[in-house]
Amino acid sequence: MDEPGDRMLTWQRYSAVRARSLEIAAPLGAEDQAAQSMPDASPMKWHLAHQSWFFENLVLQPLDAAYRVHDARWGPLFNSYYEALGARHPRPQRGLLTRPALAEVHAYRDTVDRALARFIDRASSALAQRAAPLIELGIQHEQQHQELMYTDILHLMSLNPLRPAVCAGAAPAAPSALPARWIEHAGGRVEVGHAGAGFAFDNEAPRHAVLLQPHALASRLVSNAEYAQFVDDGGYDRAALWLAEGWALRLAQGWTAPPYWLADGCEFTLHGVQPRDPARAVRHLSFYEAAAYAQWAGARLPTEFEWEAAVTGPQPPPDAYGEVWQWTRSAYDPYPRFAAAPGAAGEYNGKFMVGQLVLRGSSCATPRGHARASYRNFFPPAARWQFSGLRLARDL
Amino acid sequence: MDEPGDRMLTWQRYSAVRARSLEIAAPLGAEDQAAQSMPDASPMKWHLAHQSWFFENLVLQPLDAAYRVHDARWGPLFNSYYEALGARHPRPQRGLLTRPALAEVHAYRDTVDRALARFIDRASSALAQRAAPLIELGIQHEQQHQELMYTDILHLMSLNPLRPAVCAGAAPAAPSALPARWIEHAGGRVEVGHAGAGFAFDNEAPRHAVLLQPHALASRLVSNAEYAQFVDDGGYDRAALWLAEGWALRLAQGWTAPPYWLADGCEFTLHGVQPRDPARAVRHLSFYEAAAYAQWAGARLPTEFEWEAAVTGPQPPPDAYGEVWQWTRSAYDPYPRFAAAPGAAGEYNGKFMVGQLVLRGSSCATPRGHARASYRNFFPPAARWQFSGLRLARDL
Amino acid sequence: MDEPGDRMLTWQRYSAVRARSLEIAAPLGAEDQAAQSMPDASPMKWHLAHQSWFFENLVLQPLDAAYRVHDARWGPLFNSYYEALGARHPRPQRGLLTRPALAEVHAYRDTVDRALARFIDRASSALAQRAAPLIELGIQHEQQHQELMYTDILHLMSLNPLRPAVCAGAAPAAPSALPARWIEHAGGRVEVGHAGAGFAFDNEAPRHAVLLQPHALASRLVSNAEYAQFVDDGGYDRAALWLAEGWALRLAQGWTAPPYWLADGCEFTLHGVQPRDPARAVRHLSFYEAAAYAQWAGARLPTEFEWEAAVTGPQPPPDAYGEVWQWTRSAYDPYPRFAAAPGAAGEYNGKFMVGQLVLRGSSCATPRGHARASYRNFFPPAARWQFSGLRLARDL
Amino acid sequence: MDEPGDRMLTWQRYSAVRARSLEIAAPLGAEDQAAQSMPDASPMKWHLAHQSWFFENLVLQPLDAAYRVHDARWGPLFNSYYEALGARHPRPQRGLLTRPALAEVHAYRDTVDRALARFIDRASSALAQRAAPLIELGIQHEQQHQELMYTDILHLMSLNPLRPAVCAGAAPAAPSALPARWIEHAGGRVEVGHAGAGFAFDNEAPRHAVLLQPHALASRLVSNAEYAQFVDDGGYDRAALWLAEGWALRLAQGWTAPPYWLADGCEFTLHGVQPRDPARAVRHLSFYEAAAYAQWAGARLPTEFEWEAAVTGPQPPPDAYGEVWQWTRSAYDPYPRFAAAPGAAGEYNGKFMVGQLVLRGSSCATPRGHARASYRNFFPPAARWQFSGLRLARDL
Repeated sequence: MDEPGDRMLTWQRYSAVRARSLEIAAPLGAEDQAAQSMPDASPMKWHLAHQSWFFENLVLQPLDAAYRVHDARWGPLFNSYYEALGARHPRPQRGLLTRPALAEVHAYRDTVDRALARFIDRASSALAQRAAPLIELGIQHEQQHQELMYTDILHLMSLNPLRPAVCAGAAPAAPSALPARWIEHAGGRVEVGHAGAGFAFDNEAPRHAVLLQPHALASRLVSNAEYAQFVDDGGYDRAALWLAEGWALRLAQGWTAPPYWLADGCEFTLHGVQPRDPARAVRHLSFYEAAAYAQWAGARLPTEFEWEAAVTGPQPPPDAYGEVWQWTRSAYDPYPRFAAAPGAAGEYNGKFMVGQLVLRGSSCATPRGHARASYRNFFPPAARWQFSGLRLARDL
Repeated sequence: MDEPGDRMLTWQRYSAVRARSLEIAAPLGAEDQAAQSMPDASPMKWHLAHQSWFFENLVLQPLDAAYRVHDARWGPLFNSYYEALGARHPRPQRGLLTRPALAEVHAYRDTVDRALARFIDRASSALAQRAAPLIELGIQHEQQHQELMYTDILHLMSLNPLRPAVCAGAAPAAPSALPARWIEHAGGRVEVGHAGAGFAFDNEAPRHAVLLQPHALASRLVSNAEYAQFVDDGGYDRAALWLAEGWALRLAQGWTAPPYWLADGCEFTLHGVQPRDPARAVRHLSFYEAAAYAQWAGARLPTEFEWEAAVTGPQPPPDAYGEVWQWTRSAYDPYPRFAAAPGAAGEYNGKFMVGQLVLRGSSCATPRGHARASYRNFFPPAARWQFSGLRLARDL
Repeated sequence: MDEPGDRMLTWQRYSAVRARSLEIAAPLGAEDQAAQSMPDASPMKWHLAHQSWFFENLVLQPLDAAYRVHDARWGPLFNSYYEALGARHPRPQRGLLTRPALAEVHAYRDTVDRALARFIDRASSALAQRAAPLIELGIQHEQQHQELMYTDILHLMSLNPLRPAVCAGAAPAAPSALPARWIEHAGGRVEVGHAGAGFAFDNEAPRHAVLLQPHALASRLVSNAEYAQFVDDGGYDRAALWLAEGWALRLAQGWTAPPYWLADGCEFTLHGVQPRDPARAVRHLSFYEAAAYAQWAGARLPTEFEWEAAVTGPQPPPDAYGEVWQWTRSAYDPYPRFAAAPGAAGEYNGKFMVGQLVLRGSSCATPRGHARASYRNFFPPAARWQFSGLRLARDL
Repeated sequence: MDEPGDRMLTWQRYSAVRARSLEIAAPLGAEDQAAQSMPDASPMKWHLAHQSWFFENLVLQPLDAAYRVHDARWGPLFNSYYEALGARHPRPQRGLLTRPALAEVHAYRDTVDRALARFIDRASSALAQRAAPLIELGIQHEQQHQELMYTDILHLMSLNPLRPAVCAGAAPAAPSALPARWIEHAGGRVEVGHAGAGFAFDNEAPRHAVLLQPHALASRLVSNAEYAQFVDDGGYDRAALWLAEGWALRLAQGWTAPPYWLADGCEFTLHGVQPRDPARAVRHLSFYEAAAYAQWAGARLPTEFEWEAAVTGPQPPPDAYGEVWQWTRSAYDPYPRFAAAPGAAGEYNGKFMVGQLVLRGSSCATPRGHARASYRNFFPPAARWQFSGLRLARDL
């Protein structure tokens, strides 16, 4: 905004995404939404509140003079990691926040929604223009947390011996198995990163040139069946396949298969215990497991730029998006001339640029329309609770 | 049971105590009842389920051939520590059991209540006689957990920055300050421990003789005002007053006052933040703090037998019961010729007889009628979340 | 001192005990004497220095005006736990004190020895009388650390895959197996604790009366052969035999036998790997293991007073001393009217009187002449690196 | 080898480097050489043994049929991390290896030296050619451990309250302060990585092209005086300057300055406590501190390729080598087409390529001749015990 019609479009987009968050939570009881299974995960109720906190603290409070904060005591409770925005409740204790109750969090969302509707409607043109990128950031942020709502609740339910299903009905059918080919790339200078008018996070910019080596990328993701061969071939018992840190973790935590694999060819999913579809992309891998698999397969992980070149090339892999995030061999480093956004929004990405790896694509839990070729997802190499898998690459 | 009328009395007693558990939980939402604040504490919902599990597994399953287990998968979830009764869900993960939901736990209680009603009504006289001590144990057990329901929820709420009140209304007025005197005892041979017809736990028996030294016990509990003097006098900074283990803990955890004391003379209570009544007994002390206070006061803690002799003597302290459990200087050792109860019930007390200290009396959270002179409560010396205080003693 | 001849006797006794400490260390290299295997254990060099520190800080500095401290910077390094005597180097980092080097510690011992010789020789009668109990305490303290020198170096060597022997030559032959009998005691009032002229620690006093139940004590210690039967009978796999805390530890740490037992009937000892003598008393048990064995054997551990009554009775067990310290069922509580010694010496025992268990007798590593019937050794129930075993008891 | 004269040159080079290791250790006693201050550091004695183990296990055992292993039990003791070469003693317990004693380790070095001399002298030409790169790797490996010998012993001594000096005499004078300029680079395509005949580790290859942005590098290292300004300006208290992980660590561990800085303008060094020279390069920084400083200074860290381009350009910084390793903004990722060396030597570098950062240059502790422009040193971002500092960069 602020061209004619922009305001209505912004509101429509905002309200649709906001409604989607509630839809995700709807099948779950208040107890389910309040528990926290590990420090890395958050209660669903916390996500619902934090999403509102983001709009309240990055849009309404700075820009809307008429806005009255919903409850001043809640700021620290739902501040995730923004040092510039004050104190924060200890992350491992989010599951102890039985108050505010879920109904109160719903009321908080209503307050924020009403305030934002009024603001979008009435803000001066100048204010609306300043607000537009922050509102868009809040929408994108809400979508990122929608994916975490799924992965966090899945982790919680996986620790319940009753193995409850989060989603009703049967799991969606897997896409039929694609034939695997190598998509070759001659290498050379390519442009990567975001450019143009659409939204992108600050970590996708600036667009810049990189040099690629001649290489090939697999036309499809590694499947459960293929990964099972790795397991059966002693993949978890052969140190030579693993990075040292990964091997130490595998020993310390007793990994012998992906975390949600069960006996008898089953796996735990959002739809409860289900037969493991051999053709579906393997998921819930750590970077270490993905890298060990690639080593075993005589291949390697792609760099994030090889991946980006492939999906923007003439024959993009059909499963680049919507199945699993794909670990790359690229550390999550800043792009040349990277500049964090100004203000609190600058803490969104930049301060995490060490010790993490880039994942590309998107997963079955990613909201539609949220992914793009330049998107840089990132997680520590030990993370296993995301929908994370891999696509092979090799040198030519 | 089984004299005429016994069955009805048993049922009345059972159903009254069972109803009381639900009353304690009633003011709290499902989220409040599901969270676990630390491994030592349990969610209120878990207590409600475990109380039923106890009757199901120690009475109904062994004795009632007609009983069909409510849900076989729940056994490990609500087994607290009975090795003889199978596997157990890890204690620190009780707060992750969002399922079964609270409503399902209520249904479980109903199942057990109906089954027990039928059993009490219809059991053969022989079975009824076998069941009677186990039902009584289950009732006493339910009452013990009623106290834990209060102390555990208080601990949970204390970690919530919103400091919610568990109980509506104002805190009950403190008893007016009693004048403090020394109640003297000439020492010599006294009998301690339970004897007679009423219920007692196995750890209170056998009754036996002990020798006491001439000594005196304070006629009332140490008050908040007195404890504040200890704090003001540098009690938490003077290593010489403390047992070595307590001093190490005080340093490691930064203790400077009882855990629920707040600034400005307030404290956190079941009724939310309240002014700290100087005349009320100080509470939520660890054994280490109680012992350090006694050292500072030039006195000592009583032994459990000195306490028992005092409350059964001609001038028992009027605040022996109903305010705070009173730490004694006695390790929780077995009485001479102690024999654990047979079967799973034998795990109730005996296996904890090391590393803990005996507390005597009862607290404001103890159900009425649950306390008696021979009752041996016990906790590790570092425990601070109980309603635990002290009464001074000295040698004559 | 200070009767005629006392000074010479004191010096003879002092110098003999001091020499013995060096004899224990003599077979070991400087590297062996510097390492620390766990926070509970100390390097041998540290023991040698701390023994001198004790005389320096509890005798020379307070009483000998002529004494000049050896090195003022060393005080905190070799202060074990005396809050009254200033700061302390962190206990887990004693193995990092490569300086002062062993030779410097030897020089420290020489300094202290010379100073004490002069002091004993020249002190006024009044001073000598004040010093006498502290010198005696220092001698007893040095002897206690002599035992720890053995147990700590044994633990260190047990972690070295080369399994080095500390002591040259063969292990001393075990006493021939004694026939096991029950020594009965009719119970009743007995006097326990120290009285009379000889040395005793403050925790052995005051002598006082206790009531015993009729009971019997085994005439000999539990042997390796007997304990092996417990192991073979699944003793480490039957939760019902164990105290809860012990069972949790056994699971967490994977205990399946005493810590120095090796495969093929061998064990690790001060003489290196040796065949395990079936007739010798089992050693290096935690309290938990001792209690589980007793439960398995249909017996129990004696109380410390039952033990004391037996060894002071008409038919004391011949192996009461010199083989293994014997765990008792008694928590390490203060005796009635216990009063800690004045000054820093008051920290010697009293501040540890919680959470520990009493062991009676003495072990193969205890210096001759150091044991007596009223001696109360104490360790936490999980301690396994001492020469600790058990003697059975039962009710009559 | 194997051209005429090669064998003699190899031996000369080998024996000079081997002798240097002993020179480094010479001022230290056996106790100093045996202790381990933290799991990341190793005892000096262990380094001396491990250096020999490397030649024994990667050269002599595979290639010299006449070699008899010095002591078969020692293999696991001195294997650092080579999975292909069998079991390993737990790294945190290296300080418990009081045996083999230092003298025995010296004898081990002699054995290996004699065997290698004979092998170099007598090996067939074919064998000599196979051995040559492994001997060279062993020499480079020995030099890397020479630097660790200094940094590890410095860390150990820093934990000793007596603050002993490792090296006799005064600290070498700092180079006089250089004027600071920006060395500009126009960006564009540059070649990086090792090429040519000299030795390089596998992680420096293959040489390949990268694209640089226009940028500038500081002509000298950040000095103590400059870093002190950062400290004085609240650098350790301003979260906005820090990467999130670094800030968390700074809070958890209470960092307020570089680890060896002392009060009163002093610092702890290999020469003991010394005045902190304002002109000398600041050292012992973690990556987090280096990055926070750069942020504070309105600059950034260079990438490893910017650094390499600068030192191989027409005006290389005069302090590129010999002062401190320089943290770069580059994650330690494999170069395109990186291939680990075959066999056990392949574990040298490749398996650590995740979660670490590249440092370039060399330090005051690096052996002469060991550094080069393509050298990639690497450490985790939290490492502070190396001689690690920084050079600023900025975009043009």
